Amino acid sequence: MTFPVIGMVGGGQLARMTHEAGIPLGVKFKLLSDTPTDSAAQVVGDVVVGDYRDLETLRSFAQGCDVITFDHEHVPMEHLRALEADGIAVRPGSRALVHAQDKGVMRARLDAIGAPCPRHRIVADPADVARFAAEGDGFPVVLKTVRGGYDGKGVWVVRDEAEAAEPFRAGVPVLAEEKVPFVRELAANVVRSPHGQAVAYPVVESIQVNGVCDTVIAPAPDLDPELSTHAQQLALRIAEELDVTGHLAVELFEVQRPDGPAVLVNELAMRPHNSGHWTQDGAVTSQFANHVRAVLDLPLGDPRPRARWTVMANVLGGDYPDMYGAYLHCMARDPGLKIHMYGKDVKPGRKVGHVNTYGDDLADVRERASHAAGYLRGTITE
Amino acid sequence: MTFPVIGMVGGGQLARMTHEAGIPLGVKFKLLSDTPTDSAAQVVGDVVVGDYRDLETLRSFAQGCDVITFDHEHVPMEHLRALEADGIAVRPGSRALVHAQDKGVMRARLDAIGAPCPRHRIVADPADVARFAAEGDGFPVVLKTVRGGYDGKGVWVVRDEAEAAEPFRAGVPVLAEEKVPFVRELAANVVRSPHGQAVAYPVVESIQVNGVCDTVIAPAPDLDPELSTHAQQLALRIAEELDVTGHLAVELFEVQRPDGPAVLVNELAMRPHNSGHWTQDGAVTSQFANHVRAVLDLPLGDPRPRARWTVMANVLGGDYPDMYGAYLHCMARDPGLKIHMYGKDVKPGRKVGHVNTYGDDLADVRERASHAAGYLRGTITE
Repeated sequence: MTFPVIGMVGGGQLARMTHEAGIPLGVKFKLLSDTPTDSAAQVVGDVVVGDYRDLETLRSFAQGCDVITFDHEHVPMEHLRALEADGIAVRPGSRALVHAQDKGVMRARLDAIGAPCPRHRIVADPADVARFAAEGDGFPVVLKTVRGGYDGKGVWVVRDEAEAAEPFRAGVPVLAEEKVPFVRELAANVVRSPHGQAVAYPVVESIQVNGVCDTVIAPAPDLDPELSTHAQQLALRIAEELDVTGHLAVELFEVQRPDGPAVLVNELAMRPHNSGHWTQDGAVTSQFANHVRAVLDLPLGDPRPRARWTVMANVLGGDYPDMYGAYLHCMARDPGLKIHMYGKDVKPGRKVGHVNTYGDDLADVRERASHAAGYLRGTITE
Repeated sequence: MTFPVIGMVGGGQLARMTHEAGIPLGVKFKLLSDTPTDSAAQVVGDVVVGDYRDLETLRSFAQGCDVITFDHEHVPMEHLRALEADGIAVRPGSRALVHAQDKGVMRARLDAIGAPCPRHRIVADPADVARFAAEGDGFPVVLKTVRGGYDGKGVWVVRDEAEAAEPFRAGVPVLAEEKVPFVRELAANVVRSPHGQAVAYPVVESIQVNGVCDTVIAPAPDLDPELSTHAQQLALRIAEELDVTGHLAVELFEVQRPDGPAVLVNELAMRPHNSGHWTQDGAVTSQFANHVRAVLDLPLGDPRPRARWTVMANVLGGDYPDMYGAYLHCMARDPGLKIHMYGKDVKPGRKVGHVNTYGDDLADVRERASHAAGYLRGTITE
C-alpha cells in the first residue's frame, strides 16, 4: 500500500486531534514529541522523542515521512529551510511560516497586500513608544515581541512610557500597535492545499478572558453578511498571497467605522487553531481532517456547519487535579455534550481540554458549553 | 490524574475505531494485538503483542487496566471466567458473552425470554437435519456451527440431506434453523452500561451481498413505527436479560405475517458492529464512543441521528492493492463523503474500510455511498 506518512512536529493537543482525524483516512502518522508523555504521544503509535530545535533530529525524523507538518510554529526558520533544501515536503512551508513566526514580517506583508491591520510599527525603545502613541490617539499602546508569543504571552498593554520598558528586556524587536477599540473578536478559518484549492469555514466569534480564548460561537451571531463574506475572502487571500498550505486562522477585530462595520487582522496561526475546534462536532469536515487532507494535497472536505449553532468552550485547569470525576455529572446532565480532553496534567489556567455543544437555540447551546467547562474546571458545582 | 485505562483485546478495525472514539475522552487505551501491524496496532500508542488464547498473556495484559473489553468474541470462555475470578472488570462479562460465543446457548436463552427466533434446534447428523426439515416447511435449511462463525463463515444453506454432511465435519455442534423468507434484514443497536442505563439507536436496514454486509441505511426506510419501537425494545430487553454491557447489535429478519410485519432475531454481536458504523457520522454519539462510555460505566451519549438519512457502504478488497489513489476522485467528487479505512492489506472480498454519507434525499445519499465504495474497490471507474 502507498498510504502516505505524515510527520507531525510537536506533541501537543493539536497533534493529538490531528492524529485522531487522520485515523479514518488510513494514513500513517509519525510524531516528533518533546517527551513520551506529551498530549499526542499518549495516543500515537509511532513516536520519536526528540528536540525540534535540533536540525539532525528533524532530518532523521523526516526520513520515511512523505510530508512534515506542525503542532506549533516554533521550529527555527533555518531548519525549515534546510529541510526544504533536502527535498522534504514541509507544509506549511518556510515562506509561509515566516509570517507566523515574526509579527514584524507578518505586518509588513499584510500591509503590502493591502490587508487591513491596526496602526503599527516596529519601535526602538520606550521613548519611541511614546512617539508612536503621539502619532495616533495616544496611550494605551499594545506592545508585542515579534517572536515567541502566544495566548497573551509576549503581549503588553502599556499606559505610559515607563510601562513600555518591560517588553524590550528580552532583546527581541518590539512591535507597537494601536489598542483597537473593537466591538468583538472574530476568526476566519480557511484551509488551502498545495494545488491551490481552498475552503472557508463560517466566520466565528471568539470571546477572550484574560487574554485566553474562552468561548467560540459558530457562526458569529448577528454578523453583517457582507462583512462575513469579506472576512472569508480576506482570509482566503492571505492564505494565497502568503502561500499557506494547511489550516490558517485569521484572528480579527470587528470595529465600527462611520460607514459600517469592518475588520482588522489581529493575528495569524498556520496550523489548526483553537477558534476552529468547534468544527470537530459542528462542521461536515473538521479543521483537523481538512489540515490532513491539505498537507497531503488531497481534495478538501466540505467546511459547512452541521448545526444552526455550535459553541466551543475551553476547559482550563482549575483547583483540583482530576477532571475525570466531573464526567459523571456533565455526561448525565447533557447527553449531547462533546468532551475533548487532551491528557495533560492540570495546572491552573492551562488549556487541558474543550467541550462542544450544538443546537438551534443559541442561549441554550452557550449555557450547556459554559456549564460543562465550568463544572470540569471546578468553578461550578451543583 | 485518575483517568482510567481501557484494555482492548484484539487489534482489528473495531479496536481501531474504538481507540479513535476514546481519544477525546482523555482515557488511556491499551491494546492486546496478535501482531504489531494489526489495524488498531498501527494507531495505538500502548500495544502489547500477544495471543488472546493464552491465559497468562491475558492476565499480564489486564494488569494496569481498569476494564477489559473486546474487538471480537473469540477469547476462550474459561479465560474470561478466570479473569473475572481475578477481580478484573470484564465488559461484556462472561455471562453475557457466552451467548455471543455459542449460538446454541444464545437460541436457548432467547427462547427462554420469549424473544422471537426462527424455528431451530441442535441437530445430531445429516439424517437429523432431514427430520428437522420435515418438521417444518422442508428444505432448504440453514446450518450453523454453534461456535466460530462470522460474516457468513460457519453458515451453510443446504438443499438436502447429502449437502448437510459438510457442517458436521468440524466436530462442533450444529444448529439447524429454518430458512426465513424474510422481507429484509434489520439491525437494532443498543448500548447498556453496568449501572443499567441503556440507549437505543434507530433501527437500520442491512443489505447483505454474498453473506457479507454491503450497505446499511439509517433509519430503515418505510419501517412500520410500531415495529421499529418493538425492535428497539426487544434489543434493550435482550441486553438487560443477558446482562450485556457495552454495545449490542441484534440482527433481525423482518418478516410479513398475516397480522402484519414482525421481526425474528438472527444473530447477536456484543461489541461495536458493522451495522452501527453509520453512527460515526450520522448520530450525535457514535457506537464506539458509547461503547467506551458503557464499559467505563459513564452516562451514555445521545444516540439520535444527526441527519434525515445516513448510509454506510462497506469497502471490500478488490483487484488492485492500493486504494489511496482512489481518494482523489472520491474526495473531489463528493466533499461530504466520510471515508473510514482500516489500514489493512487488501485481499479480494476482505472488509478494508467503509464510507458514510448523509443527507435529506435517500436515493442521492445511497448513490454517493455506493459510488465511493465501488470506486475504492475498483468496480466503478469514470
